[in-house]
Amino acid sequence: MCNHHVSIGKVEDHNDSSIDPRIFSLHSFALLLLLTMNFDLPPELLQYLGALDTFIDREIRPLQAKNDNERFFDHRRENARTNWDAGGLPCEEWEELLKECTRLADQAGFWRFSLPKRYGGQNESEGRGSNLWMSVIREHLASKGLGLFNDLQNEHSIVGNFPDIVMLLHFGSEKQREELIWGRLEGRIRITFGLTEPSHGSDATFMDTKAIPEIRDGVNGWLINGAKKWQTGMHKATHCFIFARTSGASGSLTGITCLIVPRHTPGLTIESYQWTLNMPTDHATISLRNVFVPSSCVLGPLHSGLAVAQAFVHENRIRQAASSLGAAIYCVNESITYAVSRAPFGKPLATNQAIQFPLVELATQCEMLRLLIRKTASEMDRISHVDVEAQLGDKVSMCNYWANRLCTEAADRAIQVHGGMGYGREKPFEHIWRHHRRYRITEGSEEIQMRKVAGYLFGFMGAGKGRPTKL
Amino acid sequence: MCNHHVSIGKVEDHNDSSIDPRIFSLHSFALLLLLTMNFDLPPELLQYLGALDTFIDREIRPLQAKNDNERFFDHRRENARTNWDAGGLPCEEWEELLKECTRLADQAGFWRFSLPKRYGGQNESEGRGSNLWMSVIREHLASKGLGLFNDLQNEHSIVGNFPDIVMLLHFGSEKQREELIWGRLEGRIRITFGLTEPSHGSDATFMDTKAIPEIRDGVNGWLINGAKKWQTGMHKATHCFIFARTSGASGSLTGITCLIVPRHTPGLTIESYQWTLNMPTDHATISLRNVFVPSSCVLGPLHSGLAVAQAFVHENRIRQAASSLGAAIYCVNESITYAVSRAPFGKPLATNQAIQFPLVELATQCEMLRLLIRKTASEMDRISHVDVEAQLGDKVSMCNYWANRLCTEAADRAIQVHGGMGYGREKPFEHIWRHHRRYRITEGSEEIQMRKVAGYLFGFMGAGKGRPTKL
Amino acid sequence: MCNHHVSIGKVEDHNDSSIDPRIFSLHSFALLLLLTMNFDLPPELLQYLGALDTFIDREIRPLQAKNDNERFFDHRRENARTNWDAGGLPCEEWEELLKECTRLADQAGFWRFSLPKRYGGQNESEGRGSNLWMSVIREHLASKGLGLFNDLQNEHSIVGNFPDIVMLLHFGSEKQREELIWGRLEGRIRITFGLTEPSHGSDATFMDTKAIPEIRDGVNGWLINGAKKWQTGMHKATHCFIFARTSGASGSLTGITCLIVPRHTPGLTIESYQWTLNMPTDHATISLRNVFVPSSCVLGPLHSGLAVAQAFVHENRIRQAASSLGAAIYCVNESITYAVSRAPFGKPLATNQAIQFPLVELATQCEMLRLLIRKTASEMDRISHVDVEAQLGDKVSMCNYWANRLCTEAADRAIQVHGGMGYGREKPFEHIWRHHRRYRITEGSEEIQMRKVAGYLFGFMGAGKGRPTKL
Amino acid sequence: MCNHHVSIGKVEDHNDSSIDPRIFSLHSFALLLLLTMNFDLPPELLQYLGALDTFIDREIRPLQAKNDNERFFDHRRENARTNWDAGGLPCEEWEELLKECTRLADQAGFWRFSLPKRYGGQNESEGRGSNLWMSVIREHLASKGLGLFNDLQNEHSIVGNFPDIVMLLHFGSEKQREELIWGRLEGRIRITFGLTEPSHGSDATFMDTKAIPEIRDGVNGWLINGAKKWQTGMHKATHCFIFARTSGASGSLTGITCLIVPRHTPGLTIESYQWTLNMPTDHATISLRNVFVPSSCVLGPLHSGLAVAQAFVHENRIRQAASSLGAAIYCVNESITYAVSRAPFGKPLATNQAIQFPLVELATQCEMLRLLIRKTASEMDRISHVDVEAQLGDKVSMCNYWANRLCTEAADRAIQVHGGMGYGREKPFEHIWRHHRRYRITEGSEEIQMRKVAGYLFGFMGAGKGRPTKL
Repeated sequence: MCNHHVSIGKVEDHNDSSIDPRIFSLHSFALLLLLTMNFDLPPELLQYLGALDTFIDREIRPLQAKNDNERFFDHRRENARTNWDAGGLPCEEWEELLKECTRLADQAGFWRFSLPKRYGGQNESEGRGSNLWMSVIREHLASKGLGLFNDLQNEHSIVGNFPDIVMLLHFGSEKQREELIWGRLEGRIRITFGLTEPSHGSDATFMDTKAIPEIRDGVNGWLINGAKKWQTGMHKATHCFIFARTSGASGSLTGITCLIVPRHTPGLTIESYQWTLNMPTDHATISLRNVFVPSSCVLGPLHSGLAVAQAFVHENRIRQAASSLGAAIYCVNESITYAVSRAPFGKPLATNQAIQFPLVELATQCEMLRLLIRKTASEMDRISHVDVEAQLGDKVSMCNYWANRLCTEAADRAIQVHGGMGYGREKPFEHIWRHHRRYRITEGSEEIQMRKVAGYLFGFMGAGKGRPTKL
Repeated sequence: MCNHHVSIGKVEDHNDSSIDPRIFSLHSFALLLLLTMNFDLPPELLQYLGALDTFIDREIRPLQAKNDNERFFDHRRENARTNWDAGGLPCEEWEELLKECTRLADQAGFWRFSLPKRYGGQNESEGRGSNLWMSVIREHLASKGLGLFNDLQNEHSIVGNFPDIVMLLHFGSEKQREELIWGRLEGRIRITFGLTEPSHGSDATFMDTKAIPEIRDGVNGWLINGAKKWQTGMHKATHCFIFARTSGASGSLTGITCLIVPRHTPGLTIESYQWTLNMPTDHATISLRNVFVPSSCVLGPLHSGLAVAQAFVHENRIRQAASSLGAAIYCVNESITYAVSRAPFGKPLATNQAIQFPLVELATQCEMLRLLIRKTASEMDRISHVDVEAQLGDKVSMCNYWANRLCTEAADRAIQVHGGMGYGREKPFEHIWRHHRRYRITEGSEEIQMRKVAGYLFGFMGAGKGRPTKL
Repeated sequence: MCNHHVSIGKVEDHNDSSIDPRIFSLHSFALLLLLTMNFDLPPELLQYLGALDTFIDREIRPLQAKNDNERFFDHRRENARTNWDAGGLPCEEWEELLKECTRLADQAGFWRFSLPKRYGGQNESEGRGSNLWMSVIREHLASKGLGLFNDLQNEHSIVGNFPDIVMLLHFGSEKQREELIWGRLEGRIRITFGLTEPSHGSDATFMDTKAIPEIRDGVNGWLINGAKKWQTGMHKATHCFIFARTSGASGSLTGITCLIVPRHTPGLTIESYQWTLNMPTDHATISLRNVFVPSSCVLGPLHSGLAVAQAFVHENRIRQAASSLGAAIYCVNESITYAVSRAPFGKPLATNQAIQFPLVELATQCEMLRLLIRKTASEMDRISHVDVEAQLGDKVSMCNYWANRLCTEAADRAIQVHGGMGYGREKPFEHIWRHHRRYRITEGSEEIQMRKVAGYLFGFMGAGKGRPTKL
Repeated sequence: MCNHHVSIGKVEDHNDSSIDPRIFSLHSFALLLLLTMNFDLPPELLQYLGALDTFIDREIRPLQAKNDNERFFDHRRENARTNWDAGGLPCEEWEELLKECTRLADQAGFWRFSLPKRYGGQNESEGRGSNLWMSVIREHLASKGLGLFNDLQNEHSIVGNFPDIVMLLHFGSEKQREELIWGRLEGRIRITFGLTEPSHGSDATFMDTKAIPEIRDGVNGWLINGAKKWQTGMHKATHCFIFARTSGASGSLTGITCLIVPRHTPGLTIESYQWTLNMPTDHATISLRNVFVPSSCVLGPLHSGLAVAQAFVHENRIRQAASSLGAAIYCVNESITYAVSRAPFGKPLATNQAIQFPLVELATQCEMLRLLIRKTASEMDRISHVDVEAQLGDKVSMCNYWANRLCTEAADRAIQVHGGMGYGREKPFEHIWRHHRRYRITEGSEEIQMRKVAGYLFGFMGAGKGRPTKL
């Protein structure tokens, strides 16, 4: 914050005596802006949301309407997407449809929005493609409800999110970036993220998977043994990012290395797919038995692989929070509309305070949370990616745990307000509840995130480590 | 309560002067019992629970283990039970399995337990088959978790619940009872309950379905037009209980008549099956266009059909409450066991207060709610079935809304405590949440039931109408 | 429970062949009772409540109405009771009034109700004076609202509670019992309870107060150094029960001894009185500097003094729970009455669901909690006082923490429902909130009690130590 | 919002071809600011907070430290402030101290900050003295805890809040403004606000106080009969703003007139002072019996006096919200500090999740609420005072009800975290709870405010009346 103000202060130093009078007015105008907090979305961003809406209406909704593709979104959605007899994996038709949607979005210039320009994106640190813009976009899309344009169950969206690419951008060698990023964008490569294990989730540093140095056929490399769980996208993966302990004691933050393991490496076996509350599944449990990879497969710093895992966590959490907020807003809006139109006992449902008050509390939270997400995203945009954890890790977690809880609560309330219809699958609330319920567990469980906020507040962690934080 | 004590008081009047000394001791013993509240389950009931457990272990679990019947209960359960391509209806194999289980339970003498002796049951007003016993049994069975012995999704249980038969017992003509009750018990008859409509749920008295007198082929009868929603079991029904307005204004409590409509009566059409959060569905929306039934199809008093609908509502609500309590207990017990065994970061999950405290609050509620259910059931057993609404309707609703909320909360907490595994389908918590979430809407939504409790408290309804109730 | 049933089983063995037919009917009657749970209060207890009400109306209310004694209960109560200039201690007139009330209650035979007959009481293990009876009486009195008959701020009641006497009964030497119990009952003796310290509350086992053996003037005894906080009643105390570490390490459960220290022993100094949210205060902080007491002042087992502290804790907690329940009931009842009579905007406040629903939830909890308190009290009556901790400690804590929270919530809700009037002191809700708020901290804070419940559930403590408890 | 952007757009139109290059950079800079949301407080405002802190430390704290003035703030505060024997009114010494503090603050230029320059203030629509600045200042002062610089019990602050002056500014005649505003600022005038009545609070439009036209001694005027309650400051008042129905039916929004009644007008009698949870009281109940005032005493439009009452309500509510937020922040900060330092059982209290998690949830809400208050205040600053109700009334209510609830919850949590010490009066939490508890009732009860938010959401009220609001 201080630096920011210093740089602003410098503007005034540019003044000299022989000055065009128009400078004064502009100058005053600039200063006025400095003196005013600004809670409005930038006009350019509002225009971008409009452009997205237009694109959705012109290209995506027609695609969704074709060939009974609606089956993937209406009451039949879960079954239509799931190939029950193939282990509960996603149907081919469903994945093809998502691909086609992505192709259209890419062609229209939206999909790679958050990526650097050299990869076809538009990322600027504080404008287009920034965390603030992405948060607003994610909220906006989710607040429109279920649709082909933004399907959170698959983390699919016309404006893409690329955790694996971000890791590669930050940590990949040139060769890794060249091969994997381009492959990923062109659809040839798909990568899983292998941190969680059957016996270790929140406590990943206690992982059982180990890699030891081995020379095979004269090539230096690593021999991996262990297992990984919740390997999302495994059925189509070409590569796995496998985190393994390469040194240090169980529980230590250092000594973990990230290894890029091609899918068909001998010894890597898919043991099962986990069926969850929201089907289809593509979450595999895999085993690694004497899997060998050459040293060129190490991603990022040896023994400091957790940095790779951390590279995207905050960006992902703030976007997830924004999505949950958007979905919550959708649920509240739909509930209000329904309560106004439905009139049991001859008067609108909306006249009952038992209907009103819970929605009032949800709406109040939506308004408040939205601002904390935007403020946090905006502050993330001002600092380097590696400083985010120490300076904003707690705020990101605040946004995330509150948003995910709020969304499940809003979806649950929408079910209740809509009564039998809300319990039915014709309304999307059950789907929203089922999906966002997952976020309270998987992107750092809410307990883990609240523990982190506590860590910052009480001085156990964070930039102010050693002294409690003042609010 | 007073009457009860008066009748007990009479015992003392039997005393005379020439008395066997043993009478004194027994008499004192009886009086001692009168002076002591008794929160223990009757020993005979405990034995009965033991007998049920033995039967389950000997006959039902082996059946569940045969022929991959486990697919109906393990992670595959939703798909295994659902015939997605046949409108989402239950699979034949699933329904056959339930039938076979019922046959075994009937043969062993358990199924008809709550029915009168003349129908093969064991019902006594305050003992076997009573509301108290049924509550304890339902809680016990649900607390054992998912299993063929008691599957709430289908309201199937080795100890049967018979809403339709209870209505027939109270209101059926001799002919109706003869035909429908026996047919029902022998599996030839299956009846749906037609109160709710597409536009009217809680406000059933505003129903749009109307019946007008008509003579057809010289037979007096009724011509029915309208529609009904949430007709559970319609796919196998032989008869429908259809409630229709036969007189009076929309919203009036009188003027509604219950009509028994054979399934294949011309004009009765199944329009759709509602897909819900918990599949399969057997909840039909039906239309009735110029459906004619003869006067002999009237069930219960003409224009006072709501009494028929009310006949079973309290028994059903208290049993449902007991089932939800049992399921909540199961979720808490499983969470405790898991938290003790799982040790992230090298110490048991159970040592975290964020794990402990929510379970402490749930466990406390289980202990408290259990007693209110048993007390209410026990008081229901002391009074006539028609007096229950005015005297205990509020207490039944208290039990019901609290139990259903508690159960969904406990299932949700179990999901959270179990983390990724809790979100998965290998654990039954998601299934429990999805099923019991329905109870908060369908058996009188929780708002409707809380409104009723308020009605009694504030003196708008109930036995003390006109003055607020003292707690 | 098992033993209970065994003894009941024996009744049947008394049968012989030559039996008076009346035996059969009585026998059947007794058995019938055994087979029926009984949630009704014993008629004798109901009569006793009636007798209390009559006594209150005839003797206590007139006393309260005399000489503007109402000032101690109406909006002036806090000031009328407090001698602000004398350190915030209770006024003499206030304490005299309580004494006079106690004298009347003692004379009428109510005050010593819970004490053994040899001390003028009526205690029977499972009847009069039992935990069950005391719970019902405490709930009843508190549910009548504020009054001279039962003033919880001073733990004053026409039916007395005697923690210190109970400790003496269980642990006192004959001489200690003779002197202190009779002195206490006759008003000559008043004792404080010295466990808590300035730096140790919940963690009393870490106490800083130490006693070491010393011989003074040839008398064996103990030299005490330390400090105690929250010494309630210190301004009138004649003796202090001082717990001090006499052996063992800080934190150890053994090595603490209870010493009876006469008030005017040299070295015992009152340092201050703590002013609290609810005035007056009589809660002293005292220091002990080289305080010597002879060995005859040891109360109970040397080095095992915590047993003395535990002697009354469960009885006290269950009674406190019952009082909080009663006060909660009072708040709910008053709120209902007010909401029915007040009609803003021309319709009763009671018609608003925002008024109704929170009261419905409170009323439901009152009904449930009442049963758990009675069941727990009744089970305490069946077992020996030393077994209560291991077998029922968790249930007692469940009752206590839930009751205290419920009461503060109910009082807060009553304030809100009554609006400006509820915030005023003319209504007693603010006083009730302020008093019962203390119970959430002082009788084992709610966190300590929830931790204990968790200890039993997860198998860390209690009779089933080592394995999780099944609900 | 649109207008704002239009005016911004116009800046670009000033561009012409012959432009000083420096314009470009400044222009770009201005545009960049437009493109960036700005959640930072203006530097000038931060400086102002610093100036306030300095002033407090230099002038106010020394005054508080003098002559045992600390008795008004430490554990003795309630008694020190209250003249119990004079009906519970504030002590003279207490009121004199506040006056002296105000004099210092006025002299230093802080007190009149929010008033227009012609009255010695610094008000600018969007900068100094604006709603945004006042919100930030109020939050800042309250977050510093109890002190002479800002005592909310008396709505006293070194930066003054002037509801009555705001009403006069908007609605007073020149003569009224001249006399009353200057008198008020110079301490000669004190005014009460008379809307609420003994039987009407939230439903003020149903008021019983009536005024009818009367000519007395040839002077046209009004004859007032009725009563008013909660007349804060009555003991020192020189004038009362009395709202009376002058036409229209009970319940109608029009037909109410505001009349300025000098304190000693015959017929105006103080009936009593209401003692509340937080003493002293200066809240009178007054009666008006045939009180005559001349027509010149009408304040604002005849029959449309509610506009006068509304003139300040939103400014007051947002400032109150900010104060409650500040007090909540204080409670959370203090709790964190205490939990880090207190170490029962040998480890910091802060390591318990039962301590951590509730504080995490409170801290999260503080962060979120702060932003909604600032955004709402900032939007209020952009529009005309009369448009606030229709355009922002719901947002102001959101801030208010959430802030007041949050503050009482935070104070209650601080009591619990601090244990016995928190329950004591040495800590200020009990005082904070007691004061802010009032805000949930008196500035529009939280139910009234939630009903308003619902009115906007569901389309019953507000700018979008007739259609539900989209979040």
